[in-house]
Amino acid sequence: MAILVTGGAGYIGSHTVLTLLKRGDDVVVLDNLVNASRESLSRVEKLADKKATFIEGDILDRACLRTLFTQHDISAVIHFAGLKAVGESTRMPLEYYQNNVTGTLILLEEMRAAGVNQFIFSSSATVYGADAPVPYVETTPIGGTTSPYGTSKLMVEFILRDFAKSNPEFKTIALRYFNPVGAHESGQIGEDPNGIPNNLLPYIAQVAIGRLEKVNIFGGDYPTKDGTGERDYIHVMDLAEGHLKALDHIASISGYKAYNLGAGVGYSVLEMVKAFEKASGRTIPYQISPRRDGDLAAFWADASLADKELNWRVSRGIDQMMRDTWKWQSSNPQGYK
Amino acid sequence: MAILVTGGAGYIGSHTVLTLLKRGDDVVVLDNLVNASRESLSRVEKLADKKATFIEGDILDRACLRTLFTQHDISAVIHFAGLKAVGESTRMPLEYYQNNVTGTLILLEEMRAAGVNQFIFSSSATVYGADAPVPYVETTPIGGTTSPYGTSKLMVEFILRDFAKSNPEFKTIALRYFNPVGAHESGQIGEDPNGIPNNLLPYIAQVAIGRLEKVNIFGGDYPTKDGTGERDYIHVMDLAEGHLKALDHIASISGYKAYNLGAGVGYSVLEMVKAFEKASGRTIPYQISPRRDGDLAAFWADASLADKELNWRVSRGIDQMMRDTWKWQSSNPQGYK
Repeated sequence: MAILVTGGAGYIGSHTVLTLLKRGDDVVVLDNLVNASRESLSRVEKLADKKATFIEGDILDRACLRTLFTQHDISAVIHFAGLKAVGESTRMPLEYYQNNVTGTLILLEEMRAAGVNQFIFSSSATVYGADAPVPYVETTPIGGTTSPYGTSKLMVEFILRDFAKSNPEFKTIALRYFNPVGAHESGQIGEDPNGIPNNLLPYIAQVAIGRLEKVNIFGGDYPTKDGTGERDYIHVMDLAEGHLKALDHIASISGYKAYNLGAGVGYSVLEMVKAFEKASGRTIPYQISPRRDGDLAAFWADASLADKELNWRVSRGIDQMMRDTWKWQSSNPQGYK
Repeated sequence: MAILVTGGAGYIGSHTVLTLLKRGDDVVVLDNLVNASRESLSRVEKLADKKATFIEGDILDRACLRTLFTQHDISAVIHFAGLKAVGESTRMPLEYYQNNVTGTLILLEEMRAAGVNQFIFSSSATVYGADAPVPYVETTPIGGTTSPYGTSKLMVEFILRDFAKSNPEFKTIALRYFNPVGAHESGQIGEDPNGIPNNLLPYIAQVAIGRLEKVNIFGGDYPTKDGTGERDYIHVMDLAEGHLKALDHIASISGYKAYNLGAGVGYSVLEMVKAFEKASGRTIPYQISPRRDGDLAAFWADASLADKELNWRVSRGIDQMMRDTWKWQSSNPQGYK
């Protein structure tokens, strides 16, 4: 039996596939390569010394999924595939809802047709919306999302909840990621966004190597320790391991469960810049710009439920996040290209 | 230019098509006839003395929509098509999300491709969720829905809001229906559910003509005037006229607007039974059963926004609702069959 990983050539997907292969699991990767590279999987296979089965295809392509489930014996699905840029989602909401919501619906229908009943979903802390008390805890009702990206994650959680209620065979875990950063310690795989990065750390890293001029920090007057926004950063290898813990746990749950995957602590943007300077030995020029619409001042996870029920917690701190990001970026200045 | 009415052969759709044809509008009806009858449209055309263009097809069928928009010059879309049984939605959530959410996404994409920018959507009072203060008012945030049916309506409202924000050409009105009942005064068209009716009034009507034995009233111990649930019933012809008012108003709005379409007053289930007995001259046997999960005690509309901005209000009361339902049911004991 193999694990199907959709979006397995992307940033979090590739680190999770590596972790699965390393422990000996058989993996089928489905990826449309819209925001990912085939090269990432070649490197993953070298690092793991084990091959994955790669299928280039789209979750919106029902025939492709049907063939996949016919030709491979899948025990569980880890579903990363989707569009993920908050700003872009406000300009292209229909595309975000089609890819993220309809894509998941088709995947669930084809899983049901194939009798595959275990599903781990890439959700996001953004499902808590703008008004949730901090730290975010899984018992807080989700909603009040502020972008089509966030709303698409919210919708999929509602669909998973309702589908699990209707189908006692189906077990699903939604993992609510906080802010994934870092790279595998080898520096061989990492985050390789198309175009200008949307996320802070790839942006800082590209400033450090000179691809970008300076870091724009949006908002210097938040009610935080130094006025810049605070987020809960989590090393991508800790996150990858969280998926394996969820996979090991899923048979014992009933229905739908959600877990926060975060460090449980907030770092400010300025702290991240300073830590990156320390790890890279480079000066990172930055400027404080006005706040962006929809950005929150500060949030972080209450990660105690995953600790208790999944036996999972982060083991990598901010210095390692920076060191590994720098290793990846400095040895691959143009990413996988 | 014609108005496209999806689901135009169904209950509310057919009454709206009749109202459009009667005032001289050209109408294209798209309906998959899953929960509707071709006969309803034949009768509508006779009553209006004007033909509509009928296309048997599904909103999930992108090619069908593309052909439709190529072959017809559409100025606005009134979108009724969708699945609508609350109880069934809890058993078939994926089908509800596909039909109601994905179907609307495909329709919006094909409208965009064809340059059609006016969209009136069949939403529902259920989008206010279980905890909204009564009467429901449009300024209350929507959410907290209690069934996949209700959540699918909520999702579409979010999609319309986000799409309108991203596209300044697009104008959309979500009409939040309360409880539509009644039939056209001719008795020629009315509500004709498949199988056992899910809604109160068709159920009562089928008891009155002897197709069903007695009315089950779910909950006799609510904190209401007589212990049974209270709802805001609205005559389907008032509702149909609300769509025309929305159509006349839509060019003047910007973006996304929602309006309650309700009477602004609650009637209890027992009051409805008694009023139907009076209108039909028949005795309606009933029994009080335990409450159903997810049912609310009482809710009704604050309908003042539609009054003010659409110049719309109900003009038909409970006696006419009952008289018209009885005329339809007694002259068509097997519906359209």
